[in-house]
Amino acid sequence: MGMTDQDFETALAAKIDTKTKPLGALGRMETLAAQVARVQGSLTPKMETCQLTIFAADHGIARAGVSAFPPEVTRQMVLNFASGGAAANVFCAANDVALRVVNAGVLGGPFDMDGVLDAPIAEGTANSLEGPAMTPAQRDAAFDQGRALGQDGAADAVAFGEMGIGNTSAATLIAHMLTGQDVRTLTGRGTGLDDPGLTEKQKTLAAAAARCSGLTDPAEVMCEYGGFEIAMITGAMLGAAEAKRIVLVDGFIASAAALVAARIDPSSRDAMVFAHRSAEPGHAAILDALDADPLLDLGMRLGEGTGAVLAWPLVKSAVAMLNDMASFESAGVSGKA
Amino acid sequence: MGMTDQDFETALAAKIDTKTKPLGALGRMETLAAQVARVQGSLTPKMETCQLTIFAADHGIARAGVSAFPPEVTRQMVLNFASGGAAANVFCAANDVALRVVNAGVLGGPFDMDGVLDAPIAEGTANSLEGPAMTPAQRDAAFDQGRALGQDGAADAVAFGEMGIGNTSAATLIAHMLTGQDVRTLTGRGTGLDDPGLTEKQKTLAAAAARCSGLTDPAEVMCEYGGFEIAMITGAMLGAAEAKRIVLVDGFIASAAALVAARIDPSSRDAMVFAHRSAEPGHAAILDALDADPLLDLGMRLGEGTGAVLAWPLVKSAVAMLNDMASFESAGVSGKA
Repeated sequence: MGMTDQDFETALAAKIDTKTKPLGALGRMETLAAQVARVQGSLTPKMETCQLTIFAADHGIARAGVSAFPPEVTRQMVLNFASGGAAANVFCAANDVALRVVNAGVLGGPFDMDGVLDAPIAEGTANSLEGPAMTPAQRDAAFDQGRALGQDGAADAVAFGEMGIGNTSAATLIAHMLTGQDVRTLTGRGTGLDDPGLTEKQKTLAAAAARCSGLTDPAEVMCEYGGFEIAMITGAMLGAAEAKRIVLVDGFIASAAALVAARIDPSSRDAMVFAHRSAEPGHAAILDALDADPLLDLGMRLGEGTGAVLAWPLVKSAVAMLNDMASFESAGVSGKA
Repeated sequence: MGMTDQDFETALAAKIDTKTKPLGALGRMETLAAQVARVQGSLTPKMETCQLTIFAADHGIARAGVSAFPPEVTRQMVLNFASGGAAANVFCAANDVALRVVNAGVLGGPFDMDGVLDAPIAEGTANSLEGPAMTPAQRDAAFDQGRALGQDGAADAVAFGEMGIGNTSAATLIAHMLTGQDVRTLTGRGTGLDDPGLTEKQKTLAAAAARCSGLTDPAEVMCEYGGFEIAMITGAMLGAAEAKRIVLVDGFIASAAALVAARIDPSSRDAMVFAHRSAEPGHAAILDALDADPLLDLGMRLGEGTGAVLAWPLVKSAVAMLNDMASFESAGVSGKA
């Protein structure tokens, strides 16, 4: 276009500020529209379709008793996604979001069925209490597969959800290593631990964290503590950002993946729209580290991409405002006195 | 049905709590679904369609210089609604919400055009700085017309928006009389007053409020300080609540109308879903008085029903969860260990 960045910003601000509304009166809808315009490098960005990809995998650390639910629930929930019964399915249907489900490493072998893309790295990670959750080769394979899935298809916005019993533990350990905040403070109840369960989880995660005290390299942290679904989400976010797509970042687990992505490639942060503030305590630390303030705060703590899907209508609406709303001049409306 | 209230509550809680998710993990989406179920008296409520009605009217107090925009903007914006160019139009289109526009009392006479329902009480209210904004007969006519519009049509949820230069002043005075909070503290910048403009508005509203110090009867407060669009919204909310519809309450002005409605008929509060926390300072006082915590907080301060429309997908999604999400038993998912 030959437009400089400064020209683009001036034209973008002028377009938003001459819409038929008081200056700034659409608040975050204006900054959201501007973000999409910048990502696409267009004053008339396209934002019509959204796809959610849910990555599922099991976690070795689940054997340490960090979750209120048994590990077989990961596999059962993949079947629930495939048959349309989970919260993510219902929210996708209500908000016109396409959904696909990826087996990134679920216990029990391939699904071999319609509605589930089998792409497992292994049947669950190793137990990060005892050693690295995955090898560098496994991590790179997960990054690469995720990147490819973040780039394919035609959706204007992409959301990434997760399912994996034990994965709040993985996300908490990633948050601890990459933000430096106290691991016990970051530890939450996940799917619903009681007080003794929470205390035990804090103890377990502190012991796991002590294995690699001071480690801050994002790719190494992923090996030590990540999950296959988390690593694939990191790769998918990097791929989607490279493809100039808007990345709708769900709650705690997806934000841990986003933090790794942003540490690997800081420019990927530009494409991220943070959707929902999770009730998990570790989420606040990650959001602070990413200077992010989610659009929604509905007290949810489910994952699966549910928060991201609920934020999709806001993104679509913000861009519709930029594209379709009249200006004072075009509508013949008087300006400020 | 023969179900007692307690049986209904037990069945409702059981239905939500056996969905395939940790207990309470969908946060406010669960309480929202439960509210709709109670309003409709059904464990399988219907929530498929939403209609926004925008009421427009002018305000005598606008002549006292309380707005950054001139009064003719009310009429110009009605034309903008009719031609599809306003934020409300764009958000309605993006979120599959039907829209109609009502002339509740705009300066300049009837519109006589497609897309605007002419139902004016008068060409603007009287100046409430000097005397009552409207007569009891005008108020009752506005309540009645609003009530009829709140009851007609077939939408499962109804939202009410407003346009009226000067109406943050009317809403601030209503908020002051009905909450007892200091009128200067409640006064905000509306469409964008600068510091001297805000000081002048505070002085004007304090003088207007002094006319009726201590008045708390909601219908009398509407006469003294209301607007025709605000009174019609109050009537529409009462009518919609009587018709067991969900009432999506927009920002500051619509919430002032809701406060009057809830004071006239406290049971109308049950049908209200508060959509968006306005940046106007008076909104917090009204929300406190109604024990309301809006679903969204996007820094908007536009009115027109924009916040209500953006909250609609959440209401639809919450009810879809209640109706369509699988249970642990139906999906064959293991419960908590």
